[in-house]
Amino acid sequence: MQRVPFQTLYDEFYRILTEVGLSDERSVLCARLFAENQRDGVYSHGLNRFPGFVSGMKKKQIDFHASPEKVESLGVVERWDGKMGIGLVNAHACMERAIELAREHGMGCVGLRNTNHWMRAGAYGLQAADAGCIGMCWTNTTPLMPPWGSAERKIGNNPMAIAVPRAEGHILLDMAMSQYSNGKLEVLRRQGKQLPLPGGYDNEGELTLDPGAILDSRRALPIGYWKGSGLALVLDMMAAIISGGQSTHQIGQQGSEYAVSQVFIAINATSLMGETVLKETVEAIIHDFHAAAPLDESEGVRYPGEGMLRTRRESLEKGVVVDEEQWAELQAM
Amino acid sequence: MQRVPFQTLYDEFYRILTEVGLSDERSVLCARLFAENQRDGVYSHGLNRFPGFVSGMKKKQIDFHASPEKVESLGVVERWDGKMGIGLVNAHACMERAIELAREHGMGCVGLRNTNHWMRAGAYGLQAADAGCIGMCWTNTTPLMPPWGSAERKIGNNPMAIAVPRAEGHILLDMAMSQYSNGKLEVLRRQGKQLPLPGGYDNEGELTLDPGAILDSRRALPIGYWKGSGLALVLDMMAAIISGGQSTHQIGQQGSEYAVSQVFIAINATSLMGETVLKETVEAIIHDFHAAAPLDESEGVRYPGEGMLRTRRESLEKGVVVDEEQWAELQAM
Repeated sequence: MQRVPFQTLYDEFYRILTEVGLSDERSVLCARLFAENQRDGVYSHGLNRFPGFVSGMKKKQIDFHASPEKVESLGVVERWDGKMGIGLVNAHACMERAIELAREHGMGCVGLRNTNHWMRAGAYGLQAADAGCIGMCWTNTTPLMPPWGSAERKIGNNPMAIAVPRAEGHILLDMAMSQYSNGKLEVLRRQGKQLPLPGGYDNEGELTLDPGAILDSRRALPIGYWKGSGLALVLDMMAAIISGGQSTHQIGQQGSEYAVSQVFIAINATSLMGETVLKETVEAIIHDFHAAAPLDESEGVRYPGEGMLRTRRESLEKGVVVDEEQWAELQAM
Repeated sequence: MQRVPFQTLYDEFYRILTEVGLSDERSVLCARLFAENQRDGVYSHGLNRFPGFVSGMKKKQIDFHASPEKVESLGVVERWDGKMGIGLVNAHACMERAIELAREHGMGCVGLRNTNHWMRAGAYGLQAADAGCIGMCWTNTTPLMPPWGSAERKIGNNPMAIAVPRAEGHILLDMAMSQYSNGKLEVLRRQGKQLPLPGGYDNEGELTLDPGAILDSRRALPIGYWKGSGLALVLDMMAAIISGGQSTHQIGQQGSEYAVSQVFIAINATSLMGETVLKETVEAIIHDFHAAAPLDESEGVRYPGEGMLRTRRESLEKGVVVDEEQWAELQAM
């Protein structure tokens, strides 16, 4: 583990992306998103995913010149076609459009189909919050998880983000419907660590703390058992209906994960409430929440995104944490 | 346990409500909602809650003549004041308004403040689905649950419903952010049953299957540990921001639960997709889902709301299940 300045990390990402032939504007956006994911401690969707992202572009699995396009609209609900372009570019454009709709109409909703992996759900939630909106977005995925009552992978883990704007740092819930995301399991397996709580079943059908055993059995546990299983299914339905795109079972027939469906919702919280009252409302909730006596005295109770903000501050002060091997590989790219 | 015809149950509710002085229109609505909750197997929010609902009206804890009123609007987002009226009436009116907005603008969102318990979240999701919309709604509550990392009750369990329209019976996810709702724990304690999976901690801080121990310790477990804890907090924030009403920490200062905040969202799925394609999309997802091999051969894998639809059919064929004692009490009211 080593630390590198945020700007250095960004510059490396940017250099490589422009060398592959990505436009300047898109290189800026993608380099920023990858660097910010790493800066915020989302190691499952930062530096570790970048080489794969670049090789996908080189192999033309992603059409990196494609631009998302509005194909249908029904008032404040729009359907966009991602044309199998870059997931990050498509997601960013669609949340931007949802924000625009929210500025005009209080709220906007964009369904995006035929798109690729957006890396980190939270990035687009934060984008809406930066614009003073509550942001809510989710994606479907290939079947990664057995529904409750089965050992057969049928549902996606369908990561979802909800962000609430706050000047001192946005509130950000960013969660997959599995107890642990595949990215998290991979990071922990790599680090040789166990899970703090059972995250799925091993090949013998026993609950386990071993991230590798869950990746092997492919039997991740949905959050809240039947509840997360149901929520994942319903989010997939909504993504398919709103975007008019593929649902998880169709993505699963492809052999690999592409042409996924996503939803982006922005609600103009700042206009609705006024900046001052919005701030007071959120602060009062956080203040009361923080008053909860922690079970572990060394660590207070944390709101969603609080750990991220702490990591972000550290990253900006001391440098962004990178895996030495991954960092060396990046510099050699 | 005995069974009574749906119409008989409805008639009893209706008789008592009109005798208390509720208007005919409101008696029809409330009697229908209570009877449907019981018909659908939501025994935690049906017959068992009705005597308390009526005594709240008699004691004037609920202003049963109050009508909800639109107080602010920002495009397709509206804020309504429930004026401390009947929770079921307010919720129904606000989902109706969200549906109206969705018919005009593709989507509508209504924040409702100063309202009372709506009984069953799913009822208003089903209302939107009956109108061909995806319905999504949630409520905040008094602090019922400790956030992850604390034993102190600070967050609501904030029940949420999402319904997807389907001619053969809507898909309905209806879930509190606690692994088991208080209503469910109370029903199981009454029946002397244990939970199938740990639902919280006992007074010694140990995970337990005993519903009574969790009701005593007041330490229900959030779904997915930190994830459900975070989701509950964020849903409360959204409810307070969108409605301009109270958040959980303010409700907690009152001593009892009233003047809660709720959100109602409708998305016009039928107009967006067309009835035929919508039907095909949902059926294909359900078809694939049902193909998952069940771990327990006696029971297939079930989509959210599937058990409800089965109970509903049985209730309509054989009569609605009621607790004999509760039924006798109702008839004597």
